[in-house]
Amino acid sequence: MADWLAALHRRAELRAKAGLTRRLRPRAAGDVVVDLAGNDYLGLAAHPEVTAAAGRALAAYGLGATGSRLVRGSTDAHHGLEAALADWLGVDGSLVFSSGYLANLGAIRALTQPRTLLVSDAHNHASLIDGCRISGAETVVTPHADPAAVAAALAAAPGRPAVVVTESVFSVDGDLAPLAELHAVARRHGALLLVDDAHALGVLGPAGAGGVAAAGLTGEPDVVVTATLSKALGGAGGVVAGPAEFVRHLVETGRTFIFDTALPPAVAAGVRAALDLARAGDDLRAELAERTALAVRRLRAAGLEVSAPDAAVVSVTAPGPEAATAWAADCADRGVAVGCFRPPSTPDSRSRLRVTVNAGVARADFGRALDVIVECTP
Amino acid sequence: MADWLAALHRRAELRAKAGLTRRLRPRAAGDVVVDLAGNDYLGLAAHPEVTAAAGRALAAYGLGATGSRLVRGSTDAHHGLEAALADWLGVDGSLVFSSGYLANLGAIRALTQPRTLLVSDAHNHASLIDGCRISGAETVVTPHADPAAVAAALAAAPGRPAVVVTESVFSVDGDLAPLAELHAVARRHGALLLVDDAHALGVLGPAGAGGVAAAGLTGEPDVVVTATLSKALGGAGGVVAGPAEFVRHLVETGRTFIFDTALPPAVAAGVRAALDLARAGDDLRAELAERTALAVRRLRAAGLEVSAPDAAVVSVTAPGPEAATAWAADCADRGVAVGCFRPPSTPDSRSRLRVTVNAGVARADFGRALDVIVECTP
Repeated sequence: MADWLAALHRRAELRAKAGLTRRLRPRAAGDVVVDLAGNDYLGLAAHPEVTAAAGRALAAYGLGATGSRLVRGSTDAHHGLEAALADWLGVDGSLVFSSGYLANLGAIRALTQPRTLLVSDAHNHASLIDGCRISGAETVVTPHADPAAVAAALAAAPGRPAVVVTESVFSVDGDLAPLAELHAVARRHGALLLVDDAHALGVLGPAGAGGVAAAGLTGEPDVVVTATLSKALGGAGGVVAGPAEFVRHLVETGRTFIFDTALPPAVAAGVRAALDLARAGDDLRAELAERTALAVRRLRAAGLEVSAPDAAVVSVTAPGPEAATAWAADCADRGVAVGCFRPPSTPDSRSRLRVTVNAGVARADFGRALDVIVECTP
Repeated sequence: MADWLAALHRRAELRAKAGLTRRLRPRAAGDVVVDLAGNDYLGLAAHPEVTAAAGRALAAYGLGATGSRLVRGSTDAHHGLEAALADWLGVDGSLVFSSGYLANLGAIRALTQPRTLLVSDAHNHASLIDGCRISGAETVVTPHADPAAVAAALAAAPGRPAVVVTESVFSVDGDLAPLAELHAVARRHGALLLVDDAHALGVLGPAGAGGVAAAGLTGEPDVVVTATLSKALGGAGGVVAGPAEFVRHLVETGRTFIFDTALPPAVAAGVRAALDLARAGDDLRAELAERTALAVRRLRAAGLEVSAPDAAVVSVTAPGPEAATAWAADCADRGVAVGCFRPPSTPDSRSRLRVTVNAGVARADFGRALDVIVECTP
């Protein structure tokens, strides 16, 4: 084996000893697992209206977009989706990227100038962290969900352009950032607020418009929203939404927008159909909230340490990485998929199960799945 | 308008004055344009076997993958595609990302350690440049396609791990990197070679296995290949291919792999079908080569300055950005889509049309399209 591969092998062995090996486990199409691991919160990924819309666009456009958005990749499906997203989110404009990761990289870089200060929450997602890094801007990491710390960081850089970067619902623990307070702090200091609404879009807010809408910040001129189209909207891709002039700036200068093949038109069309269902889906959101509360009660009653979820992400502390892996494997063996999060994918050093509630799972299956989780986490 | 938006507006006005405005122009499904702008080199994006395979997977799995690859997003469609890619490229393993951009970011970071030196070609794609940047490693940019300069850069950093980063076929001018020479230089200095084969996969090499295969470097233990699945394979997503231990390293540590929703299963299945067609498509490649040669002859005969293409990307120099824009717009008005590349999307300060040859366009339409280009570039 070449030297470099031997070195990688040694690192893999160290991870294995620490119980931190990660393995891909493909699922088959006929898979009858109860899914409490994915992010299909409203059960729309396989909704017949979603797959039908995607299928029609597949027949009409072919599979790929065949080019970047500015060259050949923009179709009516993309523009229709962007208009619908802007309308739903109550903003002037939105721009669809091929992934949420690239949307975050593009949005943060587009918000920075040479002297910009970025103020980033300690629990932020890898794509936000990488966005800060790739922008080249000075970045201060503030303690989790701490508006006073954000205010102090901004006060320490008077006169400089600044952007406060946060998630709305955090991906591992499922807690909601204090968005209204963060916005008030940002505005007081003339800073912008960027919110990654990935885990709240479709789940929180009026008509499911997300955490920013729930916080009363819809259409504020100093707020930029990013989100994935792959969670409650059941598809793939990402979006950046905000003032029209900012969207124009992204179209003309955003490297991760310009130099990337567009999202497949069929995916854009399917997500558009899911958006309509999500926007009208107050019944789905009510079911989701009820199930989330049930999950918390049931798992706490079994003596587990469970987070207080603000959306549909429930975190269950495990004694260590090996236990988390064993718990998740036992659940999988009994037909229930739950997430297993270990360092370095957790914001602290703790391992946990992540149970993501899904309104599309049959109600009886959901109850049975909670029983299985309890039985597999002794 | 808020201050920050007014500042963006002023920058947009400066771009407009320089003829560098970029606008999205959505195409409709029924669009009858002859496409010499996209990257669907073999005409597979709308091939009935590709859309049928994608449609079957859409019905079987739903639209989105519903999660990241390690959580819930890996399906048999992804694993089947990865096995087929590895077999085609003659490597131990491959890993599919949701975009080629993210594949490049992930691959470069995974190849770097604290002391690594990256040696990057001056014409490299934005995603490779960003990969170097986000890795945090020291990066030396060498003159375009210059093995001697690469050797000098490596010789100046004796004893340090190093990676030579290049495209095979460069995206704007369509020329092929001197891959065999670069590999010889890299090996002499104990460096690795990373090749982005995006514009050569399916187009060059035995059975279309790409520029690395064409250079005789298949399966070399010090070579890592990346590519998009959105060009000759007609879909979306990206791939990193190489030694199995490196692929394992990416699965366990690659941030842009781990923290990103998986490619939709339907896209993976469609690309798998396209791969089979591309691999067996020597006839398509012969047609593509013939058309490319015809395009060069025809456009040169009209007095245009035309690159010497090594694959299917033909670059036509324009007098300036306004002329390039006007030429492309005139072509579009007459039903022919060609790419329009202006600074800062060109590796030098020159603007040009980019004509990407497509074996799937009807032969008569292709000939007529060349006439249109000649008539629109006076």
